Amino acid sequence: MATMAESMDRATDGGRLTLPNYSDVCAAAKRLVGRAVRTPLLESVSLNEHIGGRLLIKAEPLQCTGSFKFRGAYNCISQLAPTDRARGVVAYSSGNHAQAVAAAAYMLDAPATIVMPNNAPAVKVAGTRRYGAEIISYDRASEDREALAEGLAREKGATLVRPYENNNVIAGQGTVGLEIAAECRVQEFAPDFVVVPTGGGGLMAGCALALSAELPDTALYTAEPADYDDHARSFTVGTRQQVHEMKVATLCDALLAEEPGERTFAINSSRVTGGVTADDASVLRAMAAAFYHLKLVIEPGGAAALAAVLNGALETAGKTTVVVASGGNVDPDVFRRALENGTGNV
Amino acid sequence: MATMAESMDRATDGGRLTLPNYSDVCAAAKRLVGRAVRTPLLESVSLNEHIGGRLLIKAEPLQCTGSFKFRGAYNCISQLAPTDRARGVVAYSSGNHAQAVAAAAYMLDAPATIVMPNNAPAVKVAGTRRYGAEIISYDRASEDREALAEGLAREKGATLVRPYENNNVIAGQGTVGLEIAAECRVQEFAPDFVVVPTGGGGLMAGCALALSAELPDTALYTAEPADYDDHARSFTVGTRQQVHEMKVATLCDALLAEEPGERTFAINSSRVTGGVTADDASVLRAMAAAFYHLKLVIEPGGAAALAAVLNGALETAGKTTVVVASGGNVDPDVFRRALENGTGNV
Repeated sequence: MATMAESMDRATDGGRLTLPNYSDVCAAAKRLVGRAVRTPLLESVSLNEHIGGRLLIKAEPLQCTGSFKFRGAYNCISQLAPTDRARGVVAYSSGNHAQAVAAAAYMLDAPATIVMPNNAPAVKVAGTRRYGAEIISYDRASEDREALAEGLAREKGATLVRPYENNNVIAGQGTVGLEIAAECRVQEFAPDFVVVPTGGGGLMAGCALALSAELPDTALYTAEPADYDDHARSFTVGTRQQVHEMKVATLCDALLAEEPGERTFAINSSRVTGGVTADDASVLRAMAAAFYHLKLVIEPGGAAALAAVLNGALETAGKTTVVVASGGNVDPDVFRRALENGTGNV
Repeated sequence: MATMAESMDRATDGGRLTLPNYSDVCAAAKRLVGRAVRTPLLESVSLNEHIGGRLLIKAEPLQCTGSFKFRGAYNCISQLAPTDRARGVVAYSSGNHAQAVAAAAYMLDAPATIVMPNNAPAVKVAGTRRYGAEIISYDRASEDREALAEGLAREKGATLVRPYENNNVIAGQGTVGLEIAAECRVQEFAPDFVVVPTGGGGLMAGCALALSAELPDTALYTAEPADYDDHARSFTVGTRQQVHEMKVATLCDALLAEEPGERTFAINSSRVTGGVTADDASVLRAMAAAFYHLKLVIEPGGAAALAAVLNGALETAGKTTVVVASGGNVDPDVFRRALENGTGNV
């Protein structure tokens, strides 16, 4: 069911979606000053040597709430009218969007209700509860989280903050791309590739808006878990494709979307070159490499782009590649597993 | 034995030490632009709640080579004349200064020879070797590393880069303080406390030069391992005191100096309020807290200031405290130990 804002989007454009644009991303960046962390682009001699080129890692685990999701959530909730804010916000999420909405709502005095799967990582549930959000658990296999969240929002008169099918969320995530472009200007280089961990496509879409404007010669790639490559397949075919392997286990809990979003794919399909993938073993090796060479804690889903690039998914020799490390909310037992297996020599 | 540069220092000031000043730190900052990472000041709602005030963490594990030491090493070696650079540099270090000198020398085309204890953490030895430095091992219990390094420097006609008794090294480390002050201006607050992990006192001295000029009302504290509190004792007595517990085991391999440096103490004694300490158990808890709440890998010595503050060493309730996390070069078995014990609920 379309929300009122979405219906209006369609209404104002003869039934077609109204999508965010580059200037929306720039406006989001202004709202986030002093609220979001301007995360560094990290670099390591060892990782450069490994890929035979230059590799820069945008460190979003250092973002408020441990992932890029805070950018979109804050950009969205901060634009609600005071009366809407007072009625609160509702979100559904396996964890990172949950924490982000809870934190942004807390900062902006909006009550938050979050629908989370009952098998979400404990570190993400604890992170969400920390900001005073009400948590509603659901069973990933049998319940429809969207319907559950829509019902709750209707009941409370609250605003549903979708994880990626929301223009303000997409614009907020795009500030990651703006910051990458700004840092490239300071360091006087243009990357050949930018690779972005992708679930529903919101981070990629926001980054694509920013980067297609600021670095038009850079090739953009999504990075997905090996069996959840709906974006890669959709780019190949040219229309949105579903994956049906949702029962396959993956460590990348943050990247479990079954198909690209309608809005995000409308943005990405014309701006993104293609998609790469990473399996769990290379994700764990990438997490260990980040421990040794970057001193950064990355969660499995957040390490998908780094893993794919370290694993040779792109021809990076002699090139400059930027990967986004999108989040760091990982339970300690999974992190210890990465340290037990990985030596840092990827 | 004084080096030629140090003898000249004394000669130009009637036998007294010539010390670096605030403008030397500002000059170092200019040399480091585009070379050193401008590391972020991180913050977490959970850690703020724990101390009942505001806590900001300067994230030097994200620095080039994984610790603040790169700043001083690069500032020093970049000022050598081309002929001196060609003859190379020598350093002695348990690890972080070693990697920093090796990396800066590599960038500046100077051959590097590093004297390291045979029980230095493997991750630090590997980090040093990565930059092509020649490594000379010594036995911490029976050999004098300074004499060994001085001999090597004489033999090779190379420049000895001392870890803290060197004005250019101190000025370079001070850029940590400059960046803290700059970020405080952006965020429009003045910290009540700045707490700095301290071995020989170089980082504290550099920060003290920057912060006493830029934030004169902020109280500065050193943080040391519980049984290596030579600075704390020296501040109390007013003259440099030695510790004699060098046989006591501590995880903080980076902070094992027996007494404050002559230069560093001359700077710190008039600018630093006092010293706090942290035992190994609180250091491990602080490392786990940084994993959970900051997504930052901190090594034991680098976590001393965070550990002391989280453990209540200062009256931080209602105040704003900045701690420096000075390095992240920790072997995975020690990090796993921190994760096994720490829950993030410090």
